[in-house]
Amino acid sequence: MYDTHELTRKLQKNNGSKIVLLVGDGLGGLPLEPGGKTELETAKTPNLDALAARGTLGLSTPVLPGIAPGSGPGHLGLFGYDPLKYQIGRGVLEALGIDFELGPKDVAIRGNFCTLDADGKITDRRAGRIASEIGAKLCEKLDRIQIPGVEVSVRPVKEYRLVIVFRGDGLEGDVDDTDPQATGVPPLTAVARSAGSNKTAEICNEFLRQAREVLKNDAPANFLTMRGIDRLPHIPTFEEVYGLRAGAIAVYPMYRGLARLVSMNVLDAGLTLSDQMDRLEKSWNDFDFFFIHFKYTDSTGEDGNFAAKVQRTEELDSCIPRITALKPDVVIVTGDHSTPSKMKSHSWHPVPTLLAADTCRFDGSTAFGEAQCLRGGLGQFEAKHLMLLALAHAGRLEKYGA
Amino acid sequence: MYDTHELTRKLQKNNGSKIVLLVGDGLGGLPLEPGGKTELETAKTPNLDALAARGTLGLSTPVLPGIAPGSGPGHLGLFGYDPLKYQIGRGVLEALGIDFELGPKDVAIRGNFCTLDADGKITDRRAGRIASEIGAKLCEKLDRIQIPGVEVSVRPVKEYRLVIVFRGDGLEGDVDDTDPQATGVPPLTAVARSAGSNKTAEICNEFLRQAREVLKNDAPANFLTMRGIDRLPHIPTFEEVYGLRAGAIAVYPMYRGLARLVSMNVLDAGLTLSDQMDRLEKSWNDFDFFFIHFKYTDSTGEDGNFAAKVQRTEELDSCIPRITALKPDVVIVTGDHSTPSKMKSHSWHPVPTLLAADTCRFDGSTAFGEAQCLRGGLGQFEAKHLMLLALAHAGRLEKYGA
Repeated sequence: MYDTHELTRKLQKNNGSKIVLLVGDGLGGLPLEPGGKTELETAKTPNLDALAARGTLGLSTPVLPGIAPGSGPGHLGLFGYDPLKYQIGRGVLEALGIDFELGPKDVAIRGNFCTLDADGKITDRRAGRIASEIGAKLCEKLDRIQIPGVEVSVRPVKEYRLVIVFRGDGLEGDVDDTDPQATGVPPLTAVARSAGSNKTAEICNEFLRQAREVLKNDAPANFLTMRGIDRLPHIPTFEEVYGLRAGAIAVYPMYRGLARLVSMNVLDAGLTLSDQMDRLEKSWNDFDFFFIHFKYTDSTGEDGNFAAKVQRTEELDSCIPRITALKPDVVIVTGDHSTPSKMKSHSWHPVPTLLAADTCRFDGSTAFGEAQCLRGGLGQFEAKHLMLLALAHAGRLEKYGA
Repeated sequence: MYDTHELTRKLQKNNGSKIVLLVGDGLGGLPLEPGGKTELETAKTPNLDALAARGTLGLSTPVLPGIAPGSGPGHLGLFGYDPLKYQIGRGVLEALGIDFELGPKDVAIRGNFCTLDADGKITDRRAGRIASEIGAKLCEKLDRIQIPGVEVSVRPVKEYRLVIVFRGDGLEGDVDDTDPQATGVPPLTAVARSAGSNKTAEICNEFLRQAREVLKNDAPANFLTMRGIDRLPHIPTFEEVYGLRAGAIAVYPMYRGLARLVSMNVLDAGLTLSDQMDRLEKSWNDFDFFFIHFKYTDSTGEDGNFAAKVQRTEELDSCIPRITALKPDVVIVTGDHSTPSKMKSHSWHPVPTLLAADTCRFDGSTAFGEAQCLRGGLGQFEAKHLMLLALAHAGRLEKYGA
């Protein structure tokens, strides 16, 4: 498999141009009935339609045909990183999702509080879904656990879910889950799958030994299991592979975390799209590339709320004039995957994509929607190639070969 | 190159849904004149057209653009096995084609009866194309050859063609053909290309030594040459990679053999498409996935008979109501390759494909034909990805990554 970053490292050039990547999470949809319109096609999107008319449309495949991606692989693809090559463990993603700044020496673990009976057997794998406040207090207690040679961090996520991070030298992440995925049996001991991870397994077991003591009077949350024990994957930086100084404007921690994974600069902003536009305007001169993330096209899709997804799509449309007023050289509007409200979940359906630049070849598009994208000039393409198109239209790639 | 089966092994889930893959062999065609219609477009296919209207169309590339596949790679691709990775030797395919049940210890060889002159030089590489009955009798004689440590089977195929199978421990299939591809020269000795195949080469030569004696009075078929000496490739089972219990309903031995290669359950049926539908109905509760093979869209194409291929396509259409009456979650109608009657041969042209499921994104198709497939929502895709789409639409794949 060729590595597109080998190409972009060689061909990149800096001409001062600017690229905006606006991601409507889960943007792609489905009609409710055969022959009907999707959420994007139903929404009134005059600004996106005007952009489509002077741009080029297409449909992107996030991973492979038929594969519905999570947010991690979905965004890595948009950032131009092969999502089959760069895989992110559950523990790492959970840590990113609570804004925990993972470093290269960290092993991140997703924890679940659970209930043990007098014999040490699990009676409830979610500790009766304890309230988030209780979980947070228990995490504070666990955060005080000390293990020689490593720094221990324990943070609450929600209800019975927590994140544990071990920071230290020589920690590999190749350790099996301790969650037996069943009740009536004791939790498993952490077991390394490779010699390099023996130290991590030992630390996990020492942590669990102390945690059993710390939590012994906290039933129903009188113990915890560990899942998705993993390290940060080694990912080359956005600036190194593309020569772009990148700023990320995302409200949700998960997406700030994903941007941080490729070493984008994560910028502070308020909670609304309008706040994000304020930040974009203020930071305009500081970066070459902006990743702007809008969550609500996904969450309304996950809720199965077609009308709300339409409304959120219209909200996304309304921010376009503030972006184009800044005169970026390239504007891309797309999603990390589809989230059809009909399915109430992420799906594998190709994702509507709009690229607008002065170098676009006219493809006759008049509106931004799945049907027009299917006939658009970008065709159906792999999401990981989108950054090549962005750089090309920004005039940031030299010719390949003589 | 990524292995899609690594993904499907991890992501597969069983929700009890059902998939039907109906293969019209050689389905794709060409118009006889520029601007004309193909066989599929000419045929009256009201049932396929209705399915197209509620489904999604596309064109599949069996191997690579420009590559016309044989039945083996054509079907492996449809079954989701990379046809460039899993290669099937000529001997193995020939054995499959006569319903010989190959096992993991078998080396299969295609044999050609030939004529030797008094000096042992080949004068006719096809032994005057002897009648099939004569070939069959000679095979009975050869089948009695005994070689210590291996089981020898010799079976007739047609005219001068036969299959030889050696079953024994430690037999590899890396042995050169003994057919010199020329007359006026003696047949070659079997030579191993690798040390592990020395035993096989020795057995081939011992077989040939005895065969020369057995056939000495049978001119023009007084000897034979060997080609395509090979073992079964190691192919993971359909059930293991997809979690699908698969039933194959195919009339011709070759296609039953190809289904057996991926460990589908080969079901008995009569000779007509209607018999095949009877079998489908009777076995409906026993399997998750059905592969139904219809040969005659290919054979009529090979014959160069446009009108007959149109008629056979209409016959294929007529079975659709019996399939949809069973309410499968996903119906796919496609071919393993194109066989344009204009060319009288397999071709490389992308293959019309129809996928119907409740999760289809409407692509505006109104009929099943090459022109509409070109504009269809599946786009032009690699045949080996079709199973991913089938699984996705059947709700049988978990999300990839978190």
